[in-house]
Amino acid sequence: MKWWGWGHEGVSFTHEDKPDIGPFIKRALELDVERVTSRPVAFDDLDVPEPAIATDLRAALEEAVGDEHVSTDPLDRVVHARGKSLRDLVRHRRGDLGRLPDVVVVPGDEAEVAAVLRLAIDADAVVIPFGGGTNISGSLEAPEDETRTIISLDLGRMDRVLGVDDASRLARVQAGVFGPHLEEQLNARGFTVGHFPDSFTHSTLGGWIATRSSGMQSDKYGDVADLTRAVRVVTPAGTLATRAVPSTSTGPSVREMVLGSEGRLGIITEATVHVHRVPERRVILGYLLPDWRRALAVMGEIAASEASPSVTRVSDANETQFSFATKKDSSSLDRLKSKALGAYLQRRRAFDLGAMCLSFIGYEGTEDHVAAQRKLVGRIVSRHGGLCIGRGPGALYDQKKFDTPYIRDYLLDRGAMADVSETSAAWSVLPVLYDNVVANARAAFDALRVTGYLMCHLSHSYHGGACLYFTFAFKPSGDRDPLEEYDTVKAAIQQTFVDSGGTLSHHHAVGTEHARWLEQDISQPGVAMIRALFDGIDPGANLNPGKIV
Amino acid sequence: MKWWGWGHEGVSFTHEDKPDIGPFIKRALELDVERVTSRPVAFDDLDVPEPAIATDLRAALEEAVGDEHVSTDPLDRVVHARGKSLRDLVRHRRGDLGRLPDVVVVPGDEAEVAAVLRLAIDADAVVIPFGGGTNISGSLEAPEDETRTIISLDLGRMDRVLGVDDASRLARVQAGVFGPHLEEQLNARGFTVGHFPDSFTHSTLGGWIATRSSGMQSDKYGDVADLTRAVRVVTPAGTLATRAVPSTSTGPSVREMVLGSEGRLGIITEATVHVHRVPERRVILGYLLPDWRRALAVMGEIAASEASPSVTRVSDANETQFSFATKKDSSSLDRLKSKALGAYLQRRRAFDLGAMCLSFIGYEGTEDHVAAQRKLVGRIVSRHGGLCIGRGPGALYDQKKFDTPYIRDYLLDRGAMADVSETSAAWSVLPVLYDNVVANARAAFDALRVTGYLMCHLSHSYHGGACLYFTFAFKPSGDRDPLEEYDTVKAAIQQTFVDSGGTLSHHHAVGTEHARWLEQDISQPGVAMIRALFDGIDPGANLNPGKIV
Repeated sequence: MKWWGWGHEGVSFTHEDKPDIGPFIKRALELDVERVTSRPVAFDDLDVPEPAIATDLRAALEEAVGDEHVSTDPLDRVVHARGKSLRDLVRHRRGDLGRLPDVVVVPGDEAEVAAVLRLAIDADAVVIPFGGGTNISGSLEAPEDETRTIISLDLGRMDRVLGVDDASRLARVQAGVFGPHLEEQLNARGFTVGHFPDSFTHSTLGGWIATRSSGMQSDKYGDVADLTRAVRVVTPAGTLATRAVPSTSTGPSVREMVLGSEGRLGIITEATVHVHRVPERRVILGYLLPDWRRALAVMGEIAASEASPSVTRVSDANETQFSFATKKDSSSLDRLKSKALGAYLQRRRAFDLGAMCLSFIGYEGTEDHVAAQRKLVGRIVSRHGGLCIGRGPGALYDQKKFDTPYIRDYLLDRGAMADVSETSAAWSVLPVLYDNVVANARAAFDALRVTGYLMCHLSHSYHGGACLYFTFAFKPSGDRDPLEEYDTVKAAIQQTFVDSGGTLSHHHAVGTEHARWLEQDISQPGVAMIRALFDGIDPGANLNPGKIV
Repeated sequence: MKWWGWGHEGVSFTHEDKPDIGPFIKRALELDVERVTSRPVAFDDLDVPEPAIATDLRAALEEAVGDEHVSTDPLDRVVHARGKSLRDLVRHRRGDLGRLPDVVVVPGDEAEVAAVLRLAIDADAVVIPFGGGTNISGSLEAPEDETRTIISLDLGRMDRVLGVDDASRLARVQAGVFGPHLEEQLNARGFTVGHFPDSFTHSTLGGWIATRSSGMQSDKYGDVADLTRAVRVVTPAGTLATRAVPSTSTGPSVREMVLGSEGRLGIITEATVHVHRVPERRVILGYLLPDWRRALAVMGEIAASEASPSVTRVSDANETQFSFATKKDSSSLDRLKSKALGAYLQRRRAFDLGAMCLSFIGYEGTEDHVAAQRKLVGRIVSRHGGLCIGRGPGALYDQKKFDTPYIRDYLLDRGAMADVSETSAAWSVLPVLYDNVVANARAAFDALRVTGYLMCHLSHSYHGGACLYFTFAFKPSGDRDPLEEYDTVKAAIQQTFVDSGGTLSHHHAVGTEHARWLEQDISQPGVAMIRALFDGIDPGANLNPGKIV
């Protein structure tokens, strides 16, 4: 993982193979993509303070996990200091590193995790569990004023599937496994866990659980809260072990207390998760819908119908335009086809090409099942004036889906800020919430006198509602700290979520970024309940202090 | 509700219209159904102590909810003292009333609930919320040695559907509504909540939530934990109000902390629940399967398949025999048909009639959907040597399903003890868990030298496992207190659940009956987490003390 940005060194977003993206960004953000105006400071120019760790604690940690798994190396400490929120990227790129962890410890098994936690509590040190480091809600950063020794506990060595119960379709998995490695191990036995968040390539099972993650196929496989049936967590009160039972009435759900706990209760070492046979058939189809209102109606009707797609996703007009602009250089035949489709839509279907919405709907299972679901969905789409545009766009989306986060670094290189805010709400709330966010983001851009762009998609459909996922970008005015302007826009959107009946985040967690909206979302007694839980289990506040509440 | 037994006065189980049940009970329990040997003491003979309530507290309560809604009437206090566990019934029938509530308060709205709770805490009184009073885990009874004033807070007046959001398929409902009244209000608008526990007729929405209830159509509609999207709860820390969002990452789920809280965190006043359009078509079909092993295999395969039935249920051989024995007196044509079926099964299908298992599988939706699901299930059943026996038995089951709890009173009248214990476990665990329960219950009967009967059904299928629901009955030896012998059998079964990898209860909650197995189920840190939550929110232990932990 890059210390200053997303993903693998050497991989980045580029406009060179996408002829339409430059002009699009020029229009949307008044930004010249050819001008790289801002680069991260060089690593060697960073001011990395000496680690504050007592010799005997370091020795004890080395004893517990082995010398080679205890590091005070500057690069390790800088990589483990934060997640990948826009604020994290901007500050790291500037060389503003905040309160770095003093030591990075990489235990090999649960017993070593327990030993490290015991040492940390005895020494009154702070422990911050670290999975893939992709969190964008500030869940990984130590408080600026933390005076105790900070241990970043990296679960990366605990990456194995420990067993698959074929008959029960359950797998026991170590929490530090990354998405691709998890799927690889399961695919070899004919199974998949079906959890594919945008961060999939760089995030871990333990991180998904700690933040209540949701993957793009959640319509079929469930959110991580649904597919996680049991957890093992090393806590100050001992090792929590719940049972992999499908449902239980053992009082308030302890399993659900761990989901979303962001390291505040302990270190998740293992989970038992649903696995499914790799489906015989898997297809993602593209659809075009006439406008956003009809797009929302289609998604609501699919959720109410007897169809059971694996993916439901539709972009608003702005995101649809962005998607088309990121198309790679295509053959003249492709261009001709696109033109012909545009003409057909306008003349025969009376589409407004500026209002139309691109949708992806996925199907999985046997041939018969997939065919039946496609038919049910096709009827709903037709009734609302939409049409299927086949497999091409869906296949492309399926290939590109994990690359999106690289765009933020690309824009930062060019002086622009881009980030995301997502929520969920009841079906009846979504249209108004959307309109409110558009109006209030626009008002924020105007107040700052910046040129901004806002786009949105609906994804993750449920019986009673869905997630709306907004992406926004703007070129800072130059009048103030760009992060201050970012805060203005981000806060306008988040406040609109809670004012309009949505939640502060559907699947990006609370961390420090969203903590100020928590009481408005779950009410003051809700905050008191979470606080009572954390205070009772971690009276010394040794576990990732300052997050959530 | 009867003060000494289940359900409505004047309604009871009878053998008079069931020619086979007398001989069956004679064989199974060595009990003569014609001999009523034990009846509840007369109400007038009960020794009901004076209520311990200060005059000023009583006056303040009357001020808060109105004079007519504050009662110290002996019958009210006796009815509100306990739920309907076997232990509750036996002791009430004997006139052993335990620690009665001192006063029954029936608030009319959430503000009145809040006022009552405030008065209770100020006076250091105990509040025990009361819905339908059907709990069978001891969740409603005050500790024997409680010296403070005990207020039973009956939610019965808060029984309205406050609104239905058609587009989101969500209804806001007051917590005190009974099952039939809830369905009546929703059916009038074309909706159903689809939650039908055995206690449906006599239990309330708030009670379902407080105990993590599950209904017989949970395969389609979900457990109450799934269908409850938002809650309002009056707590000592204020009124908790969560949002009706379909999914959220706001830290540990506060909604899930309320589910199963059994009054320990506050009084549930309102919930927002999933509702579904009343289906076009609804059918429950009967199937016969050759034996229990194949019955379990069929259920596991259905759960793994693309079929989505609304009900999956199969009885073991003992419960199948019991079901056949409870058939009402039938025409000679019916008897002839049954005989012909038996002969066919034995001769053509090589069934062992003593081993075969009766199954009910339900389907709901459009005609097309129902037909498609039936076909998928039919194939699985056939592959395991089973066959469909049509709608008759399913329709009968559908009518009778809420009458089962009356049988316990009928048996108590004849001196026999009967009760239920249910669990859930992973599919791979179920066969062994079942065998262990059968062996250990049998060993317990033998050790007591009693004639006992044990039967079981699987119901509530999930991706990774299912619920096993055991019913046991025996005629006490006469050598000791029958409740002591009951404890021996019940404890043998519960201990086997947790020893075999199951949970202490799938949907009957913890209360006081199951509390001693909680740590074995969710581990010591799990108990500590629940305790931290309760202690933090209710530091004075005013809310239903002694339950769960």
